[in-house]
Amino acid sequence: MRKKIILDLDTGIDDAFALAYALASPELELIGVTGTYGNVAVETGVRNTLAILELFDRVDMPVYAGLPHARERDSFEVLEVSEFIHGVNGIGEAELPEPATSAAEGGAVEFLVESVRRYGDDLVIVPTGPSTTIASAIEADASFAVHAHIVMMGGALAVPGNVRPWAEANVHQDPEATDLLFRRAADVTMVGLDVTLQTLLTTEETAVWRELGTAGGDFLAEAAEHYIRAYETTSPHLGGCGLHDPLAVAVALDPGLVTCLDINLKVDVEGETRGRTIGDQSRLNDPVKTARVAVDVDVERFLGEFMRRLTALAAKT
Amino acid sequence: MRKKIILDLDTGIDDAFALAYALASPELELIGVTGTYGNVAVETGVRNTLAILELFDRVDMPVYAGLPHARERDSFEVLEVSEFIHGVNGIGEAELPEPATSAAEGGAVEFLVESVRRYGDDLVIVPTGPSTTIASAIEADASFAVHAHIVMMGGALAVPGNVRPWAEANVHQDPEATDLLFRRAADVTMVGLDVTLQTLLTTEETAVWRELGTAGGDFLAEAAEHYIRAYETTSPHLGGCGLHDPLAVAVALDPGLVTCLDINLKVDVEGETRGRTIGDQSRLNDPVKTARVAVDVDVERFLGEFMRRLTALAAKT
Repeated sequence: MRKKIILDLDTGIDDAFALAYALASPELELIGVTGTYGNVAVETGVRNTLAILELFDRVDMPVYAGLPHARERDSFEVLEVSEFIHGVNGIGEAELPEPATSAAEGGAVEFLVESVRRYGDDLVIVPTGPSTTIASAIEADASFAVHAHIVMMGGALAVPGNVRPWAEANVHQDPEATDLLFRRAADVTMVGLDVTLQTLLTTEETAVWRELGTAGGDFLAEAAEHYIRAYETTSPHLGGCGLHDPLAVAVALDPGLVTCLDINLKVDVEGETRGRTIGDQSRLNDPVKTARVAVDVDVERFLGEFMRRLTALAAKT
Repeated sequence: MRKKIILDLDTGIDDAFALAYALASPELELIGVTGTYGNVAVETGVRNTLAILELFDRVDMPVYAGLPHARERDSFEVLEVSEFIHGVNGIGEAELPEPATSAAEGGAVEFLVESVRRYGDDLVIVPTGPSTTIASAIEADASFAVHAHIVMMGGALAVPGNVRPWAEANVHQDPEATDLLFRRAADVTMVGLDVTLQTLLTTEETAVWRELGTAGGDFLAEAAEHYIRAYETTSPHLGGCGLHDPLAVAVALDPGLVTCLDINLKVDVEGETRGRTIGDQSRLNDPVKTARVAVDVDVERFLGEFMRRLTALAAKT
């Protein structure tokens, strides 16, 4: 049986790649997408998700709008750095037709809770933005934290953060939500900057997509090239752009891609290091570990799978 | 051939245990001790080292005084918390006779440099305090960083620090020195709070030493009980005291005691997180890793070895 998967996206460029990776993987059955804020506002993210689903002929897929801002705030504004990296439209100014479809009726939280109830161990949830909607699902239903399998893109354990020297962007948006997730969820895999800054895409790869001569290939190349140009400014030492969100999808499908450290995590919600993901010292000697943090990755295998899958998908449309 | 070892100690209670562990290990040949500041001032630490060597009938061992304060400072004062944990005399107010011997002629830096030149791969250096003296050895001789094998107690990677939420005490004393060590030394094993707060000693163990009825047993028990009482105040959630420094000696002897993460490290020397040990993002994708960080430890095996060795040593004197 194919593994069922829900993506919780703030669709952004690498979220678009994560969505494409899931659509391109016959071993995965994407059953829905929930939309969070982060790289873009929820409405923009949902619009991008719908447009990409339409591009790849998957208008059947339900897309639910999630919560629009962090728990401790009453609104959300796109950070300047997010706009620089992902473009004003969130997908690197790549132009996609306005989607004919719209968001599904019903809330993202209800969809998440109901899906975990129905599918249990056959389902994996992959959040690639702030943890706000997932935290609400944990609070909405006591069984969610016990039964949900979560592979999240976010955090930084053994490397510095990207929006603060101690904080990664997704966790930084809503530290309380990720802290609640780490303290209550029984099965969390953290795919953070420790590994996602090792998996780099360059213009060598995007040239392959350009050559396809398809709408899908053009879209992937255009978005990726915007992303690579942004990284040349923000992280010139890397020599490419980090494939953050698609790596989380790849790990959900194939956990053997990464080496993990079993650990009980927390997020600093107070003090100078607010937003830091770190081991919870009060549970250091608890033999039960609720999280595993990816600390190393088979770069070559992941990049091979990433290019093989996305190129095959884009060749068709 | 026995592995040669040099300890760089700020003798302190757990430094005393580290020294006892080395003396009690027939697989190790302790060839000398260098003294740094930290838990106590250099003079106090050297005095404690000499007194403990005398207690265990090892007055033959050379003890060299190292540098007295951090690179960016012009003096050193014992922190209040260090005095609380280690006692005013550094060994938990345990009383040892004033040593008849005194520090060896010649500097600690010269001894370290000369020993690495002479013994190369047959030697391991175990620093258990600030990195000041080791950093000076790196600067004094270009071959030191290339050939020295260093197993240090210090730092915290996946857990919070102990003197700041992001900084461990040894590194906090001289962040520039540890940063230089991480950036230039070719072979560093970091045995930090990630593992040393997992290896706890309780009064159950100290009772064994009390029962020996020897001067050695009395000393170990008295120092340990002071340390355990201090931990009851500073870290009541642990239920014992952390065996920081002796774990580094045990790992130098038997690297298989810990699970390590290969990584290139740095220390934050500026900004809010000064003193933090963290992966160096500029060397994240460098295939050569110069450090390994202990992230898990076989607690039972270490505690068994620790008690077996120290009890045998203390039974004799």
